[in-house]
Amino acid sequence: METVVFRVEVGDRLVTDLTDRIAGFVEGRGDGLVSVFAPHATAGLALMELGSGSEPDLADALDRLLPRDDRYRHRHGSAGHGADHLLPVVISPSLVLPVIGGMVALGAWQRVVLVDSNGDNPVRSVRCSFIAG
Amino acid sequence: METVVFRVEVGDRLVTDLTDRIAGFVEGRGDGLVSVFAPHATAGLALMELGSGSEPDLADALDRLLPRDDRYRHRHGSAGHGADHLLPVVISPSLVLPVIGGMVALGAWQRVVLVDSNGDNPVRSVRCSFIAG
Amino acid sequence: METVVFRVEVGDRLVTDLTDRIAGFVEGRGDGLVSVFAPHATAGLALMELGSGSEPDLADALDRLLPRDDRYRHRHGSAGHGADHLLPVVISPSLVLPVIGGMVALGAWQRVVLVDSNGDNPVRSVRCSFIAG
Repeated sequence: METVVFRVEVGDRLVTDLTDRIAGFVEGRGDGLVSVFAPHATAGLALMELGSGSEPDLADALDRLLPRDDRYRHRHGSAGHGADHLLPVVISPSLVLPVIGGMVALGAWQRVVLVDSNGDNPVRSVRCSFIAG
Repeated sequence: METVVFRVEVGDRLVTDLTDRIAGFVEGRGDGLVSVFAPHATAGLALMELGSGSEPDLADALDRLLPRDDRYRHRHGSAGHGADHLLPVVISPSLVLPVIGGMVALGAWQRVVLVDSNGDNPVRSVRCSFIAG
Repeated sequence: METVVFRVEVGDRLVTDLTDRIAGFVEGRGDGLVSVFAPHATAGLALMELGSGSEPDLADALDRLLPRDDRYRHRHGSAGHGADHLLPVVISPSLVLPVIGGMVALGAWQRVVLVDSNGDNPVRSVRCSFIAG
C-alpha cells in the first residue's frame, strides 16, 4: 500500500477541495482503490459539486441540523463546538474511491472535499492510501 | 481489480434496489471487498430494509431535513434542486462491502440501494469494483 | 483477506466503543485497509470523540432529526422503531480505515463506535476484514 499524509490549509473555510491532490497521488498507479481519511474528530469528507452555491447551502443546512448554540454537553473552545463533534457522525471522515488507469473515477460534477466547521483549527491532515487491485 | 459500470433505471423513484446486481457481479470471486460508487452529484448509496415502509419514511425525512423549497443558492432545474446537491453530503455515493466466498456479507434485512431525489435524471450509473483479499 | 465477526454487547447503549477490538484484530498485520461492517438494518458505524459529552449530544440530535414518534410507516416493535430504520441511511454501517504498521491510523480523539438506537437488540455483530496493501 502506498500512503501519504497531506497538510491541508483550511483557514476558516467550511469546504476545502482535495480533488487535485488526490488525483496527483493516484496518477500513474493503474487500477485500485484509494482510501481518503481525515484523522480528526471535528471534520468529515464528502463528494459534492463546487462553485454553484452548494457550499453556502451546506453551511445553512448544518446550522439548521446541528445548531451552533449552547445546547451541547460537549463544550470547550468556541460556542457551538459541540456541533463540530457531531459533524463526523453524519459526514464520515472516511471515504473510498475507485481508481481506474491512474485516475479517480469521479463523475463530471463530483469534487472530493474536506468539510470542517471547526474554525479553531486552520490546518488539517488528510491521509490517502492506495491499494492496487 | 475487476470493475463494471451498471446502467440503473431509476425513473422517478427515490430508492432503487441494487442488491441483486452487486451480488451477480461478485458471484464466484471468493473473498475481498466490493466498492460501490455512484458518479453523480445528486445521488447517494445506502443500506436499508426495503418493503416495510422505510422508503416513504425516508422521503418524508429528507423533505424535513433538506426541504425542497427556494432557500438554496444552488438553483437550476426543478424547484428544490439545491436540496438534491446536499443529499450526497449526508448519504455518501461511496460504499464498501465485504465479500465472503463470492457473496456480499449483508445482514438478513440489508439491501443496497441508490438514493436519488433528483427526478430530472431517470437513468444513472453505478460502478462496482472488486478487490480480492 | 482475513475476516472475523465480533459479538458486541450493546445493551441499551446508543454508542458502543469498538476501537480496541479493531486494534487487536489488525495488530501485526502491516499496512492495508480494514473494513468494519455492521450487518444490521438499524445500526451504523461512526468515528467520534468519547467521554466529553458527545454521546448524549448525539442522542439529542438523533431525537431531533429522526424523532421517535408515530409518524413512520415502518412500525413494529417499540414506538419510534421506524426512526431506527432510517439511522443507517444517515450513519452508514460500513466504514473503511487505513492500517499502518499494524495500527489503525486514527487521530488522537477518534474512536470507532457502533451507533444503535434500537433498544430491542442488546447483542449485535460487527465484521472486520483486513486487506493487505
